Amino acid sequence: MTDTIISSASKEVVLGFDRPFVIIGERINPTGRKLLAAEMRAGDFSRVEADALAQVAAGAHVLDINAGIPLADEPAMLAEAIRLVQSLTDVPLSIDSSVFEALQSGLEAYVGKPLLNSVTGEEDRLEMVLPLVKKHGAAVVAICNDDTGISTDINVRYEVARKIVNRAADHGIPACDVVVDPLVMPVGAMSDAGVQVMELIRRLRTELKVNTTCGASNISFGLPKRHGLNPAFIAMAIGAGMTSAITNPMEATLMQAVRGADVLMDHDPQCKNWIASYREPLAAGESGGRRGGRRRRRAKN
Amino acid sequence: MTDTIISSASKEVVLGFDRPFVIIGERINPTGRKLLAAEMRAGDFSRVEADALAQVAAGAHVLDINAGIPLADEPAMLAEAIRLVQSLTDVPLSIDSSVFEALQSGLEAYVGKPLLNSVTGEEDRLEMVLPLVKKHGAAVVAICNDDTGISTDINVRYEVARKIVNRAADHGIPACDVVVDPLVMPVGAMSDAGVQVMELIRRLRTELKVNTTCGASNISFGLPKRHGLNPAFIAMAIGAGMTSAITNPMEATLMQAVRGADVLMDHDPQCKNWIASYREPLAAGESGGRRGGRRRRRAKN
Repeated sequence: MTDTIISSASKEVVLGFDRPFVIIGERINPTGRKLLAAEMRAGDFSRVEADALAQVAAGAHVLDINAGIPLADEPAMLAEAIRLVQSLTDVPLSIDSSVFEALQSGLEAYVGKPLLNSVTGEEDRLEMVLPLVKKHGAAVVAICNDDTGISTDINVRYEVARKIVNRAADHGIPACDVVVDPLVMPVGAMSDAGVQVMELIRRLRTELKVNTTCGASNISFGLPKRHGLNPAFIAMAIGAGMTSAITNPMEATLMQAVRGADVLMDHDPQCKNWIASYREPLAAGESGGRRGGRRRRRAKN
Repeated sequence: MTDTIISSASKEVVLGFDRPFVIIGERINPTGRKLLAAEMRAGDFSRVEADALAQVAAGAHVLDINAGIPLADEPAMLAEAIRLVQSLTDVPLSIDSSVFEALQSGLEAYVGKPLLNSVTGEEDRLEMVLPLVKKHGAAVVAICNDDTGISTDINVRYEVARKIVNRAADHGIPACDVVVDPLVMPVGAMSDAGVQVMELIRRLRTELKVNTTCGASNISFGLPKRHGLNPAFIAMAIGAGMTSAITNPMEATLMQAVRGADVLMDHDPQCKNWIASYREPLAAGESGGRRGGRRRRRAKN
């Protein structure tokens, strides 16, 4: 069993094969969110605050923090966002940037053991990012592309993952601190993208024995009713062995699929989390017990 | 590859490992539907008609027909329901009864190659039902319980399935005409019910090489928000290799999970069925093309 432990000052979250699925909230990311980008650039982090609290309330176990705004001081903004979010909530964070200096400054600002998002199999990235991961005792997301780009062949992507895990070991980082992102392709463009990524997830789990994460909503890119396809994908990916995803906890049907998959994987003992999330509310004026011959009204579901 | 072909006079439906998932509509069943039972007993089959048409419109590929009403003439009623439904729709039917004479009369009334629902591993059922299946050239649902009852051990259930498949062969019925129901237990009562049934589905597919079906909604019995758990289960079961289910096609989120799983299993070429089911409607007054600089309005989804 491989447990990836990440933490804030006061809270641990564990990714593992026999653990409930870990939701990494993706909302704090200005990419494609013009308003958030403009506000952050102007020093207004109120939406970051609101998004942090809302995602945790919706069930996110970890929050991804990205401050990638063109022409802005990303290292400073990422550090500021991290300090702010850590002052508001105790969930661990994923520090997300493609800029080395931003990863560095994010790690310096962070209290606890974060998930660093990300390293790839590209030589220069490996040799820049892995020492940083080791120095700060972080865990790291390893994305299955390398200097040759993103392969559509899952055997190549598997080998990239293996290379990163081996290189991490060379740097003194154990495999349990490498969380592999197998790369989810849009099934609308590549019809075997679903089958392929599930097979890769299975191999990463059984052969490489690592935890996995992914940007789950990529699967439905370009299709109508995307939010209807994502829950099926996440349930199937959990069935194949995926242990976390970077996704939107504000999508109720997606969270329902995740909680349902936890129940079905026997990762929700006595269905406690499911029942706590979805028990029927009592009608006004009713108590929990049945008294006076009144029957409890059942919500239609 | 194992293909189970069932048919009406004019239409074939095929269950198979590389085929779209087959939905067997469960609604025409008076068990637990007092009004339907009372109407059928009084000779009023209008609800049977309406349910047949509605389920086909919702996407059912096969309809299950059950006429099990206490103290009624089940053989006559089942035959009547079958004739009626076959006059209304061309989808193949599943003839569903625990009463031998009703199965017999249903088979006599049916035009085409039906699915007979069901035989178990009980000795007397095997020796009564299998000759009937052979005589009529039907396919049959094989339920994984025997004279010792329903085992909670999936190895025992697997052996029951194997026994039925072997006994069917003794009667001249090929394995492709045996569709195994692994028996879905409520996960609220047995916390490993999901993991176990998915493992059994995998073994039935890879080792026994048979098609499978199940009463999918059993999984959520007794839990709140049942209709939220069923879609996750069906997607995961399809991922594990299940090829059909007896379920309610009127549940939109369930059908969405099935169609999504078909896409993700690469059983929906070019996502044609997904797109046909969920493409965004044009706003009133708009045509399909983009003309005159107007942008097509996108439905929020």
